[in-house]
Formats: sequence, C-alpha cells, structure tokens
Amino acid sequence: MEFKKYLTQQCAVVEQALARYMLPEEGPLSAHIKAMRYSLFAGGKRIRPILAMAAAEALHAATEPLLPVVCALECIHTYSLIHDDLPAMDNDALRRGKPTSHVVFGEAEAILAGDGLLSFAFELLSHPDVQQTISPSAQLRMINIIAKAIGPKGMVGGQSLDLAAEGQTIPFDHLRLIHGYKTGALITASVQAGAIFGMADEKQFAALSQYGVQIGLAFQIVDDLLDVEGTTEDLGKTAGADAQRNKATYPAFFGVAKTKLMALEAVEAAVTALEIFDAKAEPLRALARYIYERNN
Amino acid sequence: MEFKKYLTQQCAVVEQALARYMLPEEGPLSAHIKAMRYSLFAGGKRIRPILAMAAAEALHAATEPLLPVVCALECIHTYSLIHDDLPAMDNDALRRGKPTSHVVFGEAEAILAGDGLLSFAFELLSHPDVQQTISPSAQLRMINIIAKAIGPKGMVGGQSLDLAAEGQTIPFDHLRLIHGYKTGALITASVQAGAIFGMADEKQFAALSQYGVQIGLAFQIVDDLLDVEGTTEDLGKTAGADAQRNKATYPAFFGVAKTKLMALEAVEAAVTALEIFDAKAEPLRALARYIYERNN
Repeated sequence: MEFKKYLTQQCAVVEQALARYMLPEEGPLSAHIKAMRYSLFAGGKRIRPILAMAAAEALHAATEPLLPVVCALECIHTYSLIHDDLPAMDNDALRRGKPTSHVVFGEAEAILAGDGLLSFAFELLSHPDVQQTISPSAQLRMINIIAKAIGPKGMVGGQSLDLAAEGQTIPFDHLRLIHGYKTGALITASVQAGAIFGMADEKQFAALSQYGVQIGLAFQIVDDLLDVEGTTEDLGKTAGADAQRNKATYPAFFGVAKTKLMALEAVEAAVTALEIFDAKAEPLRALARYIYERNN
Repeated sequence: MEFKKYLTQQCAVVEQALARYMLPEEGPLSAHIKAMRYSLFAGGKRIRPILAMAAAEALHAATEPLLPVVCALECIHTYSLIHDDLPAMDNDALRRGKPTSHVVFGEAEAILAGDGLLSFAFELLSHPDVQQTISPSAQLRMINIIAKAIGPKGMVGGQSLDLAAEGQTIPFDHLRLIHGYKTGALITASVQAGAIFGMADEKQFAALSQYGVQIGLAFQIVDDLLDVEGTTEDLGKTAGADAQRNKATYPAFFGVAKTKLMALEAVEAAVTALEIFDAKAEPLRALARYIYERNN
C-alpha cells in the first residue's frame, strides 16, 4: 500500500519535471513540439526516472537536482517507443491505449519526433543545472554511460538484432543478448545515473549496476509474459504481437511457469545485490518486486 | 592551390580519425554497424569536422585532441542525411553517387543506422580523451551547444518545418528560418565546438559564432543553387529535386543572379567577422570562399 503511494508520488514528480523541462507548444516549431509532447505525455509509468531517483535515494542523495536527467531518460525511452512502433519496424498502431505517433502525425513527423526527443535528451543531460550538485566530470561520465547504453552497442543495436531475428530460430543465448541490449541497457544506465548522482563509491556503483542488470532482465521477461497473458485492453498495446510476429520470447523457450520462476529469480538477485544498503534502499527493493508483480 | 592541398590533408585526417573511433564491423552487431559505416564512409566532404578544426587552429590550438568531437559532428551529419533520405521524408535513392541507406539495408535498418550514429555521436562527445585538453565544464558546454543545434529548436525542427512547407507558398522569412535551423545550426555549432576547444574568450567566441552563422547561410544558398544548376552526376544526388517537390528556395525567390550575389555577401560577412584573428585564421577564410566556389 505504502509503495503504491510512493509510486504515485514519484510519478507525479516526474510529470511535473517533464512539464517544466519540455519545450512548450508554441512558435513556428509548435507542430514538431506537439508530436514530441504527444508521446512524452501519453501516460507512461516513468519507471526509468523513478529507478534513477530511487538509486540516488539509496545513497541518501537529494533527488530534486537529478530532474533534468530523469526527464532525459524518459525522452530517450519515448523516442525508442516511437521509432519501434513505426510501420517499417513493429508497425504498431496502439501504444498506452492511444494511437501511435505515426498514426496521428504521419511517418515523417514520427521519425522526427523521435529524433527530436533523442537530441533534446542530451540537451537535458548536459544541462548546467546538474552541475550544482555533481562535478562536471561526474556529469560527463553519466552522459557517456547513457550514450553507450542506447547506441549501437546498446538499445539501438538490440532493436536491430531483434528485427533481424524475427521469424528466425535463434538460440536462447542470442535472445538474452537481444534483451540485454534492447531493454536491459537503458534500465541499468538509469540506475547508474542515479548512482553517479548519489556519488556512489566503487563498491556501491558495482552493487547498483548489478541490481540494474537483474531488474532489466526481470523487466524483459515480464514483458514477454505480459504479451502472452495480457489483453490488448490491459496492455494498452496489441497483445499477442510477439507470437504473431513469430518472435523468440522467454515463454516460447521455457513455457509460462518456468518463465515466471526465472523472472522471480532475477528479482531476488536484484534485491540481494542491495544488501550493502540501508533502509533508504527500500524503494529500490520494492521496485524490483513491483516489476515482477505487474504481471500478477 | 595551397588550399586544395589543405582540404585534402584535413579530409584525410578526418577519415583516419573516423576509422579509429568508429566501431569495427564485427561480433553479433556487425550488420547494424555495417549500415552505420556504409553511410559514414560514403565519401563526404567532411566540411563540419574541417570547420571545427580550422576554428581551433585560428585560436592557435592543437587539433589532434579534438578528433573524437569532429568524428561526432560527422556522425550527426550522416545520421541526418540517412533520415532525410527515407521514403517517408525526401525519398531519395541516391546520395554521394551511391544508393541511399534504406535502398541498401531496408527502411528499418536505415532508421536504426541513423539512430545509432546519433547516439554514438554523444558517446564520442563525452569521450574521456577530450578532457586531456579542455576542462570537463568546457566539454559539457560543447555538448550542450551541439545538442541544442541539432534538436527540436535546431536541425530536427528545421527538417520538420521543411517538410511542412513542401508545396506551400511561404514567405522568405520562413525560408530563412528553415535554412537556419536545418543547415545553419549544425555548421555554426561545429565552428563553436572548435572555438571552445581553442579556449576562445567571449569576443573570439562571438566572432567565430558570427562567422559560423554566415557560412551556414552561404552553404544553404549555394545548396539551393547547386540543385538548380548542377547535374545529378556532379551532385551525386538527384538534381532538380527541390523544384520537383515545389520547395521554396533562394533561386525561386530571387533568381539565380541575385542568389549568387547573396551567397557572396554572406561569405564576405563571414570573412569580415574574422578580422580580429591573425594568419592562423587563413584556413577559415579560405573555407568561407570555398563554400561559395563549389558552385562555380
């Protein structure tokens, strides 16, 4: 119950920050900004921002100065959804219960809305406000970690592998690789951004990274489960899309029961990684369990 | 003659740097990296990197430590070309005399190759090597300037405006706005990146920025002229494409003769902005003239 309140509260913090940092829909560029805002304010769960703030909190850091960064994480996530949904990619017409960007604004503007959000994310990540809290070199390290996590050896590379694997028989190791790049990398980087903000020492950074890797894994396994078990209404996007596209998934490899167990194991490994932290890491622990439970 | 040698030499420096910093085509991500490399090594003139290096040179700075940054500028430029050429955008099949990315790799991978190059650019911009020369806060300022120049209030916004204006009658002021965002912003930011690298003081930074704005303008005017006067063979891309698409251009507004004069005026304004610099700014001056002459 308490955790639900925490989630609602943190989600509101992120929404307010996005409203503050995102460009207003005015001037000659208003049509472009409108398309960016449409997807950004489409009611995401804001998991990556909340994870980043919870990681900083675990290190007893104030999370307010982290807000430009958490907005950037959400811009990056939103850009990836817009591009993934494009006709040339997954060709999804529905996301979060709303028509996808290209359905509303056309394909060209959807591509540009994604490009705009990605570029704007780095404007936020390099925001001078951030230097009031952490050193410029810590900020640069954070930018470098995030850029790596979303680039050719991260999220974008994962999407490329995912598309190439469609309709192919791939070994499980390859599926794990795809998931790690496509979903895990940005989730891990979000936690690491919070860690840098909380001025984690080497041991704390390693523990939080390990936590990030494990919840990234849990997240993708649960996503695969939701696609099998959820309805289109519950999901706000087309259910059963993976099976339709003949995509390799955890349930396809292991069946639903074993897949659930694997998700639970990842969550437990994530919580175990937090052993060195005190009660301030409670939100992080609860977030790990929440990632599993959103399926149940 | 001397300047031709300079251009060839600087171009070779950029090619070598790109070869060094760009990911090698190996491992499970090789297909994605191959698509990125295909467009990156398609024989661009490397104008933005050369401008950045020439600006640093004008301030008597060594240009070698700037190489990760100049590679990033070229990655960003290449990403913008890949996305602009997409079927949903300008639908161009030819670029630099070669089939465009989506023709070779399909639309999905072309979108991802662009996304990958853009993300990778910020990995390079935040590269720790850069800190051997400039302070972390100067590096952050550079990242912020570049991110702004290519985002919703920069290059991407300009492309959005450009698409929206197709087939429309727009006033000249609006054309100037589009050009400024779409082409001018990244060119100006490239010069500014070099200025930051050369530790420009406020006055020097303002002068170089003014130079950047003027050559950005000249560049776009000449581009419009080339589309009218060049052949597909000369250009390596489809000639007459603007007129075919009923795009607003300088020649459409003013005719060819007056447009040439306007380009020349911008070049002269750029050179005038460099008055406070000594002979080390000669390459910058020659580059301004070169931008005009590539039409003649």
